[in-house]
Amino acid sequence: MRIAEIHLTPVAIPDKPLLNCKGVHQPYALRTVIEVICDDGTVGLGESYGSTKALEGLRRAAPALIGLDPFHLHELKSRVITALPEGGGINARSAVADHKLTDVVASAFEVPCLDIQGKLLGRPVADLLGGAVRSSVSFSAYLFFKFGAHVGQEQDTWGEVLTPEQMVAEARVMIKAHGFRSLKLKGGVLHPDLEIETMLKLREAFPDHPLRIDPNGGWTVETAIHVARKLESVLEYLEDPVIGTDAMAEVAAATSIPLATNMIVLEFDQIAEVFRKRAVQIVLSDHHYWGGLRASTHLGKLCETLGLGVSMHSNSHLGITLAAMVHVAAATPNLSYDCDTHYPWIGVDVIEGAPFTFSDGALTVPDGPGLGVTLDRDSLAELAALYKQADMKERDDTAYMKQFDPGYERRVPRW
Amino acid sequence: MRIAEIHLTPVAIPDKPLLNCKGVHQPYALRTVIEVICDDGTVGLGESYGSTKALEGLRRAAPALIGLDPFHLHELKSRVITALPEGGGINARSAVADHKLTDVVASAFEVPCLDIQGKLLGRPVADLLGGAVRSSVSFSAYLFFKFGAHVGQEQDTWGEVLTPEQMVAEARVMIKAHGFRSLKLKGGVLHPDLEIETMLKLREAFPDHPLRIDPNGGWTVETAIHVARKLESVLEYLEDPVIGTDAMAEVAAATSIPLATNMIVLEFDQIAEVFRKRAVQIVLSDHHYWGGLRASTHLGKLCETLGLGVSMHSNSHLGITLAAMVHVAAATPNLSYDCDTHYPWIGVDVIEGAPFTFSDGALTVPDGPGLGVTLDRDSLAELAALYKQADMKERDDTAYMKQFDPGYERRVPRW
Ligand SMILES: [Mg+2]
Ligand SMILES: [Mg+2]
Repeated sequence: MRIAEIHLTPVAIPDKPLLNCKGVHQPYALRTVIEVICDDGTVGLGESYGSTKALEGLRRAAPALIGLDPFHLHELKSRVITALPEGGGINARSAVADHKLTDVVASAFEVPCLDIQGKLLGRPVADLLGGAVRSSVSFSAYLFFKFGAHVGQEQDTWGEVLTPEQMVAEARVMIKAHGFRSLKLKGGVLHPDLEIETMLKLREAFPDHPLRIDPNGGWTVETAIHVARKLESVLEYLEDPVIGTDAMAEVAAATSIPLATNMIVLEFDQIAEVFRKRAVQIVLSDHHYWGGLRASTHLGKLCETLGLGVSMHSNSHLGITLAAMVHVAAATPNLSYDCDTHYPWIGVDVIEGAPFTFSDGALTVPDGPGLGVTLDRDSLAELAALYKQADMKERDDTAYMKQFDPGYERRVPRW
Repeated sequence: MRIAEIHLTPVAIPDKPLLNCKGVHQPYALRTVIEVICDDGTVGLGESYGSTKALEGLRRAAPALIGLDPFHLHELKSRVITALPEGGGINARSAVADHKLTDVVASAFEVPCLDIQGKLLGRPVADLLGGAVRSSVSFSAYLFFKFGAHVGQEQDTWGEVLTPEQMVAEARVMIKAHGFRSLKLKGGVLHPDLEIETMLKLREAFPDHPLRIDPNGGWTVETAIHVARKLESVLEYLEDPVIGTDAMAEVAAATSIPLATNMIVLEFDQIAEVFRKRAVQIVLSDHHYWGGLRASTHLGKLCETLGLGVSMHSNSHLGITLAAMVHVAAATPNLSYDCDTHYPWIGVDVIEGAPFTFSDGALTVPDGPGLGVTLDRDSLAELAALYKQADMKERDDTAYMKQFDPGYERRVPRW
């Protein structure tokens, strides 16, 4: 059994004007839908980033995978590395948003291969990863400050969220719709004292929900320690308050709140240093850049071994990604935190039916063969058309922010 | 699909009077052959230790696994932990030769489950571990000083090996028969200066073979550093020269020879400390006590992540174990050293045919479904009868040594 064909379809998905410390989400988020077709007709699905660099990497690697046995996942990675010889290294020119291109591309094709393996076996992907240790996977509400409308558009149903009170209202809507049992705020947007106030108001309104805040490294060490002191007994964890291993270690030493990261530990090679420096307590897993679902299970064991916690990171995504996240989360015993997901912000999908409905903030692990999702070709065609029409090839939150505020500048750290 | 029956058959396999720093191998080595039978008739094979503690652990856990889905390997481990509540911890009363009983037992049943999975798929076990990255796996000759005969028996074909010259002759026979391309000496037996001389004579006789020596922690730090100085440019690695993490770190700091271990890193929980203390450079994998084949792949990735090398450990074993070793070694990209095996010292097997013939010291990865080996019921019955007849329930190299030398005492360190 060999891979006979690969189809890559870039898509644009309507997004909301969500704020972070770099700017604001553009009207569309870009993704690539991946179909891997074997010579026996079995089809595996995958989903990855849609930026030019990712898409180019996928396109250059795809021909090298024709003829590959979909069980030969080590060879998959070797072929990707050979096809993308310059694809290594943090912040390399070929990196995709700081992620190693080869890991991103290998992962993008590994998931469809596991989908194929599961279909051959008539087994869910979780069974290829040691089996599910939980029948459902819990997610956290992902709260964003936001503008009320995109440039030149009507106000969206969420409206403007720029104050602590409005954020509590947003959280109420999220919880009412999906039942989330923990809350994560994308911070680094308002003045830190307003974000402290926001977290305190969330704590007051939702006394039993674990709370997190993630300013994406938007704070100075001084600010981070100030925020940590004010929220010492409030936060479940504090995600990337500052940038850099030494700065994270300084904050970690000054607070009892565990620090989490998806910014200073993006690949296996970076773990030893943060471990030696005791810079973080929780690593965010994300199969899209850690190298795939099997690599994510290695990461889980590695974190267990080093006494680190594991949570799960998200970017704006569709249901193929969500299915993969649910399978690997279910098969990672020490993934003990509710996972991040942008899914509730996205009103569309490329998969048939509506398999993913949060119940008490959790999703049931699909029990069908493979990932358990099927492509809806009409929806795919629609979002592919949107990609062409959108005429947007990269994510650039800062450039878009300038359309709202011409004087806006990206500052690191911002506060 | 569920596990319907489990059969455990303790067997005794004729062994040679091989010497180590604790004494001498008894006339028999004990193993347990494991058959896991599913409700659809699929049979998975496994092999583990045969000592009383291991056998009792296997017997107590087996009933808890009836009804288990053979793909639910995380659940397998949970069930074993529940069935053996006292089974944790290094040197716990329930430990099997210092290995955590729960890891030993979970591994013993995981391998048959993977054999079953492979048979269902019509795929080799290596394909369930990411696929083989090499079509054959290289092994090292395992050289032992030895007595010429067991107590009360005729001299065996190997004869007595108690001098450097005799060891060179043993190596010649091993290489001639199996083509091994690297040599490992079980040390800690003769005076260290004689073992240094042995290694130098081996180097002279086999200038291109990587050389290792493993005295099983039988040396003081002072002796170890003395040996290391004499063999600085001779050894590929030095295995467990001393006992204890701090002692290993002291030796490691004093030599450029990489230190390897299967004595101070026996489970995941011990890795962080040796990493922090820079006590070893190479970890020996062994699926029997690391928790299985999947756990061994985690160990491989973990070692890669921490900049540690990976080699593979062996005890006296049969062909089921050898098949499992070959599959996992083939699917571990960074297993870059030739693996240990006692197999050439064992003249019998419980598997059909003679699938394992070393060619240039290497074995081809079996390409049949699962492990690729089938039980020979006559041989199994023979070795099971030998177990009953042998009237031996534990390995005790020291007690047996006293039959040769009544004044012999176990000393740690010996030299
Ligand atoms: Mg983050
Ligand atoms: Mg050893």
